[in-house]
Order: sequence, then structure tokens, then C-alpha cells
Amino acid sequence: MSTSSNLAPYPPESGPFVTVAACQVRLQVGQPDANADACEAAVREAATRGAELVVLPELAVSGYVFESVDEARSLAEALDGPTVARWTSLARELGVVLVGGLCEDGGAQVFNSSVVIDASGLRAGYRKAHLWGDEPDFFTPGHDRPPVVDTVLGRIGTVVCYDLEFPEWTRLPALAGADILAVPTNWPAGPTRALPTPGEVVRAQATASTNRMVVVAADRCGTERDVEWVGGSAVIDADGGLLAGPPPAAAPTVLVADVDLGPARDKRTGPRNHPHRDRRPHLYT
Amino acid sequence: MSTSSNLAPYPPESGPFVTVAACQVRLQVGQPDANADACEAAVREAATRGAELVVLPELAVSGYVFESVDEARSLAEALDGPTVARWTSLARELGVVLVGGLCEDGGAQVFNSSVVIDASGLRAGYRKAHLWGDEPDFFTPGHDRPPVVDTVLGRIGTVVCYDLEFPEWTRLPALAGADILAVPTNWPAGPTRALPTPGEVVRAQATASTNRMVVVAADRCGTERDVEWVGGSAVIDADGGLLAGPPPAAAPTVLVADVDLGPARDKRTGPRNHPHRDRRPHLYT
Repeated sequence: MSTSSNLAPYPPESGPFVTVAACQVRLQVGQPDANADACEAAVREAATRGAELVVLPELAVSGYVFESVDEARSLAEALDGPTVARWTSLARELGVVLVGGLCEDGGAQVFNSSVVIDASGLRAGYRKAHLWGDEPDFFTPGHDRPPVVDTVLGRIGTVVCYDLEFPEWTRLPALAGADILAVPTNWPAGPTRALPTPGEVVRAQATASTNRMVVVAADRCGTERDVEWVGGSAVIDADGGLLAGPPPAAAPTVLVADVDLGPARDKRTGPRNHPHRDRRPHLYT
Repeated sequence: MSTSSNLAPYPPESGPFVTVAACQVRLQVGQPDANADACEAAVREAATRGAELVVLPELAVSGYVFESVDEARSLAEALDGPTVARWTSLARELGVVLVGGLCEDGGAQVFNSSVVIDASGLRAGYRKAHLWGDEPDFFTPGHDRPPVVDTVLGRIGTVVCYDLEFPEWTRLPALAGADILAVPTNWPAGPTRALPTPGEVVRAQATASTNRMVVVAADRCGTERDVEWVGGSAVIDADGGLLAGPPPAAAPTVLVADVDLGPARDKRTGPRNHPHRDRRPHLYT
């Protein structure tokens, strides 16, 4: 374990550091004003506590458990609509980068989307590609890759909820250079909660460590039409370690943690190992 | 969450069940007789406790921390050598399926291999494709896919140690129908042990749940040329839950657990979700 094939010293130096927040918000379908206010309050709390990147849940304004496509459509809005305008104002006022989930009115289709917003406005919109449960009754799946946005804080990618269960999908923004993957999510609680850490969080930890990429997951809470939620928000470092969360109860919480982008940029896991360069993609297909 | 696109009832019925063992063995490089005896003792204990599938560590007879390729070669043996013969005798006598790691003499090359053995003898050999640390100084990486062997217990796949860190690789035996992935491993302990569960085990749990495949990882213990080991052996169900392990200390341990192959065969995670069918491979390349 002595020979090194890399010239750079290992382990690399730490930094830069970014303060990130995952906002676990209580939401209710069909109450967009109350949901938007709850989101704004969480973003303000995060910024007060020093957060530079703030992540909100999936479908943070509309709510999730729709009864019909008409209900989903009635709560959808375009990417130049009021939520993006409000989040842009917040990003500008508070000097933060904001990622959150939005029920997107895409004209003939409705998408379950995530938006990346900074002081300059909308930087990227992403449409969830892997739909869970009854979502195909309401949403069209996206087909574009997760974006990676070069922000003042670093390179931020985003996927939505069930997308995170597909390692092939999260690998794409990792290989495209994402330092941080921001994951708006609504994790419905299943019958099996046998793990000491919820399975959703375990998979997020593995996503982080197999890619050497920080993962910030913002889950929701609050019973909605008989659906309970995991409340598994977490800030995970590039080693897969839990820096913050999941909170002990599925209650409203703003998790704030300083994350080191050094390991996410260097990638190496040892003097001779690098999880991207050690891949053998020609064997995978 | 009421509409089902599947005709089969969800959740599916349980079973069949298989009793599996992960043998965490104390090994020492260059002491093949003592190592082989320690392995045999562990296999016998596992069988006494009801195990039908028994998994041994990586390089279970040779040891791991080689000082030269000559040392590795001196401890290598062919797939028709004494270890496969001894393990075949054990499998026959005890009525078990056995998977273990072997330093393989492949003629001009040495491989870090895993073998699947039942009462009929050697069923498959697999050569580790992703090499860790200084292993490239001793081993040639394999290029064949992980095998999936149809045994009396079910369909058993195998990879070795660092292979498990590449979700693209473990996806292949899962898609080929493996019920169980047997993972001989030697996990060297790194400087970072901040996680409540070792990161190696977290990644094994995610491998299990994202693929709905049982994972049995047999790690080693015993200091070897200043290298310590995680001692992270574990039996993980298809939900990613820890049925047994990791043991509290990196000491010799035989973990035994009954695993349900029902979820591994049905695959569904909800009435409308199936992590293999929900993949969108045309978007991944």
C-alpha cells in the first residue's frame, strides 16, 4: 500500500467548504399559499443560520398526493411562474442558491420537476425521469439528463426522489462533475422500517460515497391523504457520512451543515484509487 | 396509490427461505495451512448451525497483503488445485453451497478470484474486475461478467470486494436473475470510521435494495503486515436490511441468518414499481 501512481499528495487538502441546508417542511396538497409560506420560512431560517445552498422538498408548493390529473394540473405552474419568481427574489435577497421541487406546467404535459435558482434567476429545470407509484397517472417522465449547474458555490446537480434509486442515473451528474447533488424528495413511509437508518437514506449515502459527491436530500413531513412520510432529510458528505439528519422524528426541521468539497473534487479514495477512473465502462454494456 | 398495473397481488407471498452464513475468519498471509483450517472450522460451524450457503472471505487461504508478485504467485493455485478439492469435499460432506475467495494461478497471470462450489464440484470461477490499492502489482483484473449459478438453493452470483463499489457491475448479476450475491471481501480499515455503520456495509445495503437481491458479505479479521480490517461481514435482505452483522468487533464470527428469496424474485417495491423494469437504460448511455 506504499506505491503511488498519482503525483498529487494523498489525502488531498480540505476545502473549499460550503454551508448547506436541507429543509424538511410540513406540506398539504391543494394549499399552495400555505406551502409556499412554509417553504419561505424554512429558507429564511436556513439563511439566518448561515446556509449558502438551500434545498426544499419535491412538489414543495403543490403537495404530492393528487386525486386526479386535473388536480395536479390545477396546481402546476410554468418555470416562469410565481414560485420561480418568489424563489428568485429570496435567492437574491438572502444571497443563497436554492433548489426545490415544483409541479411544472409544461403545456400539454405536467412534470415533477426540480429547479436550481440563484440571484440571477432560474439556472436549470429538471424533470423527474423515474416515476413512483401513481405518478404516471399525473406526470410525464422527463428524458433529459440531470443538469449540473456551475454556481458561485460549486457545481450543483439535481435529481428528484425515486431517481436516486437508480445508480446509473446519479452516476451521470457525478461524471459530469457535480460536487453536490441536491435531491428534493417526498419519501412515502412503507410498511418496512426495520433498518436503523431508513433505506432511502442508506441509498443516498451509497450514492454519495460511490460517486464521491455530497448529497443533500430534503424530504417532507405532515400526513397527506393518509400517506405518511419518512422525514428522512439528510446532509451527506462525499464519504457517505451523515453530517446532519435524518431527524429523529418526521417533523419540520432545517438541517444545516458545513460540507467539504475537497474530497468531491479530488475523488480519490486512496493513493491509487479513484472511483470514477477505476470504472471499466466497456465491461458494463 | 390504489391503482395496480400488475395482476399479481402485492405484497407477494414470502419464501422460499434459505439459511446463509458469512464467515469472518482470522487470516495471515503466507500461512495457507492455518488459513485453510480456520476456513474449514468456520464452514463446519456454519453447517452445524443450519447454513445451506456458506461464504468465506477474499483470498481466504493465501492471505492478502503480499510484498511481491512472487509471493502472490507462490501462494496461488489453479481452479483444480487443493483448495477447490477441499472445499468440494466439504460441500459434499455437509450438503452446503460454498463461495470463497482464492488466489488463482491462471498460468502467466495471477487473479483475485471467487469460486462457487456445490456437491458436484466447481460450478463457477470469477476473477475480480476492479482492483484496489496495490493489487495491480500482483493481480491481472478479470474481464468476464460476474457469474450467476443456478444451485439447489437458488441463483447465486458473486463478485469480490471492491467490485461492490461499482453499481454498474453489481447490476449485471442482478439483471441476470441472481437471488443472492455472495461477496468474499477483505475490507481494509481506512482512517475514516465516522459512520454508525461502516461505509462498506452501507454500500452493500444499497446494492441489495436497489437490486432487490440478498447480499452476503464475508470479511476477514486479524492484523496483517500492519493492515487492520473492517470486520464488516453482513447478511443483508433484499430490502437492504441487516439480518446479521456487522459484528461489534473485528473478531472471528460466523453470522447465520434465514433469508427470504421471495422479494428477490418478485422484485416489486410497490403495486406499480419494480426496480429493474423501472430502469430507463436508453437514457443511461
